[in-house]
Amino acid sequence: MRAFFTEEILDVASELKLEGETFQHIKVVRLRANEEILLLDGKGKCAYATFKSLEKKYAVVEINRVETKKPIANRAIAIGLVKKDALDLCLKMAVELGFNRIIPVQSRFAQSYELNNERAQRLLIQALEQSNSPWLPKLENPISFASLVENCADYQDVVVMGMSVGHACESLPPLGPSVLGIIGPEGGFHPEEEQSLSTLKNSSAIHLPCPILRTPTALAALAGVIFTKQRLLD
Amino acid sequence: MRAFFTEEILDVASELKLEGETFQHIKVVRLRANEEILLLDGKGKCAYATFKSLEKKYAVVEINRVETKKPIANRAIAIGLVKKDALDLCLKMAVELGFNRIIPVQSRFAQSYELNNERAQRLLIQALEQSNSPWLPKLENPISFASLVENCADYQDVVVMGMSVGHACESLPPLGPSVLGIIGPEGGFHPEEEQSLSTLKNSSAIHLPCPILRTPTALAALAGVIFTKQRLLD
Repeated sequence: MRAFFTEEILDVASELKLEGETFQHIKVVRLRANEEILLLDGKGKCAYATFKSLEKKYAVVEINRVETKKPIANRAIAIGLVKKDALDLCLKMAVELGFNRIIPVQSRFAQSYELNNERAQRLLIQALEQSNSPWLPKLENPISFASLVENCADYQDVVVMGMSVGHACESLPPLGPSVLGIIGPEGGFHPEEEQSLSTLKNSSAIHLPCPILRTPTALAALAGVIFTKQRLLD
Repeated sequence: MRAFFTEEILDVASELKLEGETFQHIKVVRLRANEEILLLDGKGKCAYATFKSLEKKYAVVEINRVETKKPIANRAIAIGLVKKDALDLCLKMAVELGFNRIIPVQSRFAQSYELNNERAQRLLIQALEQSNSPWLPKLENPISFASLVENCADYQDVVVMGMSVGHACESLPPLGPSVLGIIGPEGGFHPEEEQSLSTLKNSSAIHLPCPILRTPTALAALAGVIFTKQRLLD
């Protein structure tokens, strides 16, 4: 079933007119009349609807059923700013994997560029539609490393990947529902940055048995680790 | 440090002549004289070497030190044959994540095409060089679903992702060193296929809390789950 993102309020109503980007998207994919579609508001509402007709400036759909998903856990990912194509892939994966907040970080060895926020939002929405995820993550503007360290206090657990070998947890403890994952940039963290992350009370550094991971690979693998330690596999 | 794959036997010898693909690769990247490089034989040997000179048909390097990594665990990944660009990404990630065997599977709802083996090998070698992995995985020719089921007996544990919701382990047990991960194709498994996988004594089906994952995302996340359950994070 095709999914579409919409900012309309989704309630079981007889009819809904979809305009703007959602209308454009529906126009492009040439839905058949009476085709079943899924509408996602990115805030946990999934509406099963029937496509009725395409007018000049809007599409008409009939909503059949609305499901409200229970709020996503507070699962955030911070990424040292990496090259644009790697960041694109990270954004998509973060949506698929259900992170609710994405924090690009301008750490010492990270790339330095202006994030094109409009383009990034479009990527996130595409990924949401492709993955049927009910949640659109909040993409922060890139923050400084110092702000990242401050942000860590908002989470019960912080799991860091990409620290040099000296830093490692004895054994990663079980994780609570509120977790921040941190992935270093391609050049790794500066020793001072590693120092400040490793002295946080709620942080653990993990090392996968792999010499070099590209950032998107690291992100998805870290999600797998977090889900396992949150006991969310079953 | 730049890494190069070579099929030469790597021993601490005074000099080595590198020909063929390795020579071509060294030529392209324009190494400086006396630059330190890493040679990987894909079978666990990592040789730290010094680039000496570029001749007409070969490059001359001097090997300084050879490390032999201890054999990789028997960690394999089977993937329902997916679209080519997704498969490419899966191949790269499988190398990065240290799988030693990649098994494309022609399951009922998988894509159907001839695998270009030469191209796939080049991708694997590129990924090996980029990730500094000492191990080149064995890429199998696509096998039937029935053969996949037979293959499961060669592994201590089998972890399946992509089964429909009815199948789930109560709780994924700790995993031994010999693990086969299985990821369904984009269309999922056929109910009969699910049935035969779920009745295997050594198999567990896991579900991440995500509606739809693209196959490369699923692969890396599954690796994260496996590493955690093998206690390899520390």
